Amino acid sequence: MANEEVKLYGMTLSPFVLRVEWALKLKHVEYKYVNEDLKNKSPQLLQYNPVHKQVPVLVHNGKPICESTIILEYIDEVWKNSCPLLPLDPHEKAVARFWAKFAEEKCLHSSFDVMSNAGEELKKAVEELKKNLKTLEGYLEGKKFFGGDIIGLVDIVAGWIPCWLPMIEELVGVTIVNEEHLPLIKAWMHDVLELDVVKETMPPLDKTAAHMKAIRENVLAAKSI
Amino acid sequence: MANEEVKLYGMTLSPFVLRVEWALKLKHVEYKYVNEDLKNKSPQLLQYNPVHKQVPVLVHNGKPICESTIILEYIDEVWKNSCPLLPLDPHEKAVARFWAKFAEEKCLHSSFDVMSNAGEELKKAVEELKKNLKTLEGYLEGKKFFGGDIIGLVDIVAGWIPCWLPMIEELVGVTIVNEEHLPLIKAWMHDVLELDVVKETMPPLDKTAAHMKAIRENVLAAKSI
Repeated sequence: MANEEVKLYGMTLSPFVLRVEWALKLKHVEYKYVNEDLKNKSPQLLQYNPVHKQVPVLVHNGKPICESTIILEYIDEVWKNSCPLLPLDPHEKAVARFWAKFAEEKCLHSSFDVMSNAGEELKKAVEELKKNLKTLEGYLEGKKFFGGDIIGLVDIVAGWIPCWLPMIEELVGVTIVNEEHLPLIKAWMHDVLELDVVKETMPPLDKTAAHMKAIRENVLAAKSI
Repeated sequence: MANEEVKLYGMTLSPFVLRVEWALKLKHVEYKYVNEDLKNKSPQLLQYNPVHKQVPVLVHNGKPICESTIILEYIDEVWKNSCPLLPLDPHEKAVARFWAKFAEEKCLHSSFDVMSNAGEELKKAVEELKKNLKTLEGYLEGKKFFGGDIIGLVDIVAGWIPCWLPMIEELVGVTIVNEEHLPLIKAWMHDVLELDVVKETMPPLDKTAAHMKAIRENVLAAKSI
């Protein structure tokens, strides 16, 4: 489409922003990245996302779209002629949405619990995350990616796993994914990290690890008060 | 569509099942309702929704779809020729999805907090729910329903408010919606309750109130252990 203006308000260390970058790059959509300092948010961000005041926000020809999963659906619908993120068949589409929601609400949330607990609570959180990843793995059977031969909505929503989970494991000092317990997830993580779109957008690992360490320390400190 | 088989696995007192019933009735889709006893779930429910083992499940020509908001999107896509639940324009659609997500994740969750707290925590939860409803009210400005002249996705997802919230207010002994603080939400609640589709499907109020009272008592008892 000609004369389009696509802006992405983001922050380098956010896995939610990364989702949108992957989708735009997969669709070959040119966009301007506006980096936000979340400690000093721009008037534009507050104007475009007055409810949550968070990144990512996609602004397409002046109109803002908020919430990463909603942005992904928007991108797939507007730039529909290349690299579909969702299946066309309504039932297959509903199944993909189901697993994207599961990856978000179960797997991601239990990874937050791993990040923000220690001792017995950490052990429980690790078991819960392993159980959820095992359930998610069922949708990967017989396929390279959740989307089939190429990545789709579920791969993108679950994309924090290959990029962030190894850092969480190291930070917390546990092993969550291994070849014995989660062989398909392990292979999928490797395949995702080999994709050009992922390599091009990978945040600096040292900064990301330091950012996560700070989050964990703050949460644990707040709990001990 | 001819020779279609549409079954809805539900439970009379579930606001999530009610969403699906409203959508099917708005679209004039004939369906068979299979009532589930959640204390003794049927093999069919466990087969169709092995991950969450919950209602609602819509089974369309033998294929199951789970999670009420995903079922609503499916229904809108498959039976697209009558009573659209989502706008056709991709940006307006994204905005409707944003508010449906807000109604689900913010308003509904804070109503659970109201249901499951007492004392100071209850006061906080009531203020949080009021704040969230005030934010949601912004999307109603200048319209009769969130969907415009007719109800749409956001009205259906937020449909627990007119049906359940007055019961929560009575059960807990607080006023959350009034004409002074939330005049548009108040008027919208009245208009929703006047719709035929809502009147036809309204669960028995005495049973629903008793069910909610039991939930509240169980949660408060568990917290006091």
